[in-house]
Amino acid sequence: MKKLPVALKKITSYRVIYGDTDQMGIVYYANYLRWFEKGRSEFLREIALPYSMIERQGFHFPVVEVSCRYVESARYDDLIQIETELSECRRASLMFNYMIWRDSDRSTIATGMTKHACTDLTGHMIRIPKILLDALEKAAL
Amino acid sequence: MKKLPVALKKITSYRVIYGDTDQMGIVYYANYLRWFEKGRSEFLREIALPYSMIERQGFHFPVVEVSCRYVESARYDDLIQIETELSECRRASLMFNYMIWRDSDRSTIATGMTKHACTDLTGHMIRIPKILLDALEKAAL
Amino acid sequence: MKKLPVALKKITSYRVIYGDTDQMGIVYYANYLRWFEKGRSEFLREIALPYSMIERQGFHFPVVEVSCRYVESARYDDLIQIETELSECRRASLMFNYMIWRDSDRSTIATGMTKHACTDLTGHMIRIPKILLDALEKAAL
Amino acid sequence: MKKLPVALKKITSYRVIYGDTDQMGIVYYANYLRWFEKGRSEFLREIALPYSMIERQGFHFPVVEVSCRYVESARYDDLIQIETELSECRRASLMFNYMIWRDSDRSTIATGMTKHACTDLTGHMIRIPKILLDALEKAAL
Repeated sequence: MKKLPVALKKITSYRVIYGDTDQMGIVYYANYLRWFEKGRSEFLREIALPYSMIERQGFHFPVVEVSCRYVESARYDDLIQIETELSECRRASLMFNYMIWRDSDRSTIATGMTKHACTDLTGHMIRIPKILLDALEKAAL
Repeated sequence: MKKLPVALKKITSYRVIYGDTDQMGIVYYANYLRWFEKGRSEFLREIALPYSMIERQGFHFPVVEVSCRYVESARYDDLIQIETELSECRRASLMFNYMIWRDSDRSTIATGMTKHACTDLTGHMIRIPKILLDALEKAAL
Repeated sequence: MKKLPVALKKITSYRVIYGDTDQMGIVYYANYLRWFEKGRSEFLREIALPYSMIERQGFHFPVVEVSCRYVESARYDDLIQIETELSECRRASLMFNYMIWRDSDRSTIATGMTKHACTDLTGHMIRIPKILLDALEKAAL
Repeated sequence: MKKLPVALKKITSYRVIYGDTDQMGIVYYANYLRWFEKGRSEFLREIALPYSMIERQGFHFPVVEVSCRYVESARYDDLIQIETELSECRRASLMFNYMIWRDSDRSTIATGMTKHACTDLTGHMIRIPKILLDALEKAAL
């Protein structure tokens, strides 16, 4: 495993819309995975390597595993914060951890993780590209 | 305008899941557009020209306009019926009409339409492909 | 029709995520309706009457009609701007207009409108509540 | 833990629509959780206790944990099968396991699980209701 130079984190925010809720009056559980994606997307932008650039360079990071624990319910109009951390960077896989909380009272809403393979555009597993390793190194300085 | 040989219609059904609803206790308004898509997708399969085949032949039918009137509310666990009709087939555009009703009491839930351009895979407007015209003709026999 | 004191508008922004796109490489057409909702939600917050407050006061503004014209395609990672205008405020209905553009090149991506009924929490049509009229008046000063 | 009388399973099917895919050309990872929900919804209908009835009796089964492994990619127009098994039924929680495969070639697409609390309509944790235990017992005969 590639040792990560330092803990790299990024916090981004999102305002819950009506379309995110379900008839239980809380955010539908699948929508948290959209927030995870927003979190890692902003993480990559933060290290100056937006995912659109990764794709243009010929790489994909498809999700191979996800898990989420729902601690409290997010509700309509809540401003939530999404903290994303790159927690592992192996030869051919990545892992992100997520912590989601409500901005108003700082209460934890959910925690989760996604594991990603690294593939070329045809879907074959390949090594983590050097552009990512370089971007991580620069960001850690 | 290409005169349509006969009114071609297809009815398909869908069971509302929790994820389709919002906190008003009814189906979120954007999800009706997913049902329209399901309707025209099954329409195309019915005339033996599934959209996946259209794409493999090098064509796209992107939506250029949509409208929907919400008459009654669809609710969780409702079995709904989606009737799709190809209502226009012009040189370089198509129009579908939709009628959505609740299966249990036959009440109309929504009506709508989508207008589609015909493009090649790079997004340039082109003529409606012959494979569609042929499929329509065969289906009308 | 209640004449609107002045044109009230609100612009809000959104960054397209992967989950918004479809395999055509553009934003799926139903997701524009989520943006319309975000637009009117921020409009109501702007006039100091967030929709959550409207609900707590016993009112709903369910969508009874929507239309959208898709002019250009929004793509992954685009920063889009959503301009929302309250264009009509009748006895028992409201209408919002939307204009969506890409931030980078200012090109128009879509235009649309939603028409809303005003109901109580049991779904019966009622008059537009005074709290909305008052908020509009204050905002127009 | 309440020992389950027999392994209760239900298989249901779903046709992938365009709106389920993303620009990688595969189903967006969050949408699998919608399928899990469809699976357990049909499971409950199978044991003659649709979730709508559970809610009317005053109970909710909110998801407290989810995990999913993505083995192969589901694609547009795939007919997928969702097998749902109630794998645990404790004092105040339930667990479902899911197996998703492509109908055409029987290849496994994903596996996953959801863990649910049992609450009353105000969100307080309570015991699994007797109506569920009775329905499970009847279904196992």
